[in-house]
Amino acid sequence: MLSDLLKDKTIAVIGGTGKLGAALAGRWRAAGLAVVVGSRSGTPYAEAAAAADIIVVTVPFAAQADALTAIASHAAGKIVVDTTVPLVPPRVMRVQLPPEGSAAQRAQALLGEAVKVISAFHNVAAHKLAQPGAVDCDCLVFGDERADRAVGVALAEAAGLRALHGGALANSAAAEALTSVLVFLNRTYKSDGAGLRITALPDLADPTA
Amino acid sequence: MLSDLLKDKTIAVIGGTGKLGAALAGRWRAAGLAVVVGSRSGTPYAEAAAAADIIVVTVPFAAQADALTAIASHAAGKIVVDTTVPLVPPRVMRVQLPPEGSAAQRAQALLGEAVKVISAFHNVAAHKLAQPGAVDCDCLVFGDERADRAVGVALAEAAGLRALHGGALANSAAAEALTSVLVFLNRTYKSDGAGLRITALPDLADPTA
Repeated sequence: MLSDLLKDKTIAVIGGTGKLGAALAGRWRAAGLAVVVGSRSGTPYAEAAAAADIIVVTVPFAAQADALTAIASHAAGKIVVDTTVPLVPPRVMRVQLPPEGSAAQRAQALLGEAVKVISAFHNVAAHKLAQPGAVDCDCLVFGDERADRAVGVALAEAAGLRALHGGALANSAAAEALTSVLVFLNRTYKSDGAGLRITALPDLADPTA
Repeated sequence: MLSDLLKDKTIAVIGGTGKLGAALAGRWRAAGLAVVVGSRSGTPYAEAAAAADIIVVTVPFAAQADALTAIASHAAGKIVVDTTVPLVPPRVMRVQLPPEGSAAQRAQALLGEAVKVISAFHNVAAHKLAQPGAVDCDCLVFGDERADRAVGVALAEAAGLRALHGGALANSAAAEALTSVLVFLNRTYKSDGAGLRITALPDLADPTA
């Protein structure tokens, strides 16, 4: 069942033709959400952002600053879900957090305090999300305001994931850094997409189960 | 079965009367390892380190620099397993990585290149490790040399944990940062000790199962 937090909301997926963006857009549409995709080859980022209540940014780290600059004037008062992971080629298996502490804090600094930045979807393998069915991975949601994080939790659950409040936006560093570790684990243990589960949360049901 | 990597080795646990140190020392003794505990009220850190082949440092973040200084002259050529998590009171639920990038890199900087620094045991709840039985948490092991990490993996397995190579020492930032998130999850979801499991590693058996 769709959360009341998402009722009648339009979601812009910026970079929505990329692997993660396309997978999220597909799952959200299937859940009954209105989704507008912003892409370099279709609807411009700014136009998609202007049309939406909630903006989800799913671009590579190197494209983050440009994408955020493009949407900034249409983001005031809105929730922006940053999904950026600071993978810096060629050493993508090595944690390289930006000087701001995390890509999420970088997004907040670029967008300014009038924008409600949260972050999520760092650890889920896009190709698994692109297939139907459950994904064996928790989604940690970070943000300085609990009410804003709750929207991210609702979005993750609408995409079929178990989602958890992960605390302050600064805590995004943990999930962002873990992505490089997951890339390392994929190579070392020959996995097609290692994920993350938080254990010993007995009262929390899996909403996808 | 004890790994050949640990055969006839003596392990020094520096800060071994703390919660994590005492739990590890107990499990390693039970596994047949020779353990010497260094503590402020017993065997001095330097003496314990001098007597050992492998040195495990289990002190709070605020005590890390002093502890490493105390053992430095007895650590050359040895493996030092740093378990430090940069929890900075009063905001222990907020990720606050040190300027070096991680406590593990700080340890390497303090000890110098002659010491083989690895890091591990960041995410396991000490009070769960203090009880007998399995702990539902993976142990990520970080270090720049695979052979050094393998010793950390063997130590974690000897303590009854599933252990994984997590990549370069810099990647320790991921597990260290995650500890603050786990503290946040414990409070938010009323857990007695949230842990971490890596999913989708089909070929890796749980050595504790």
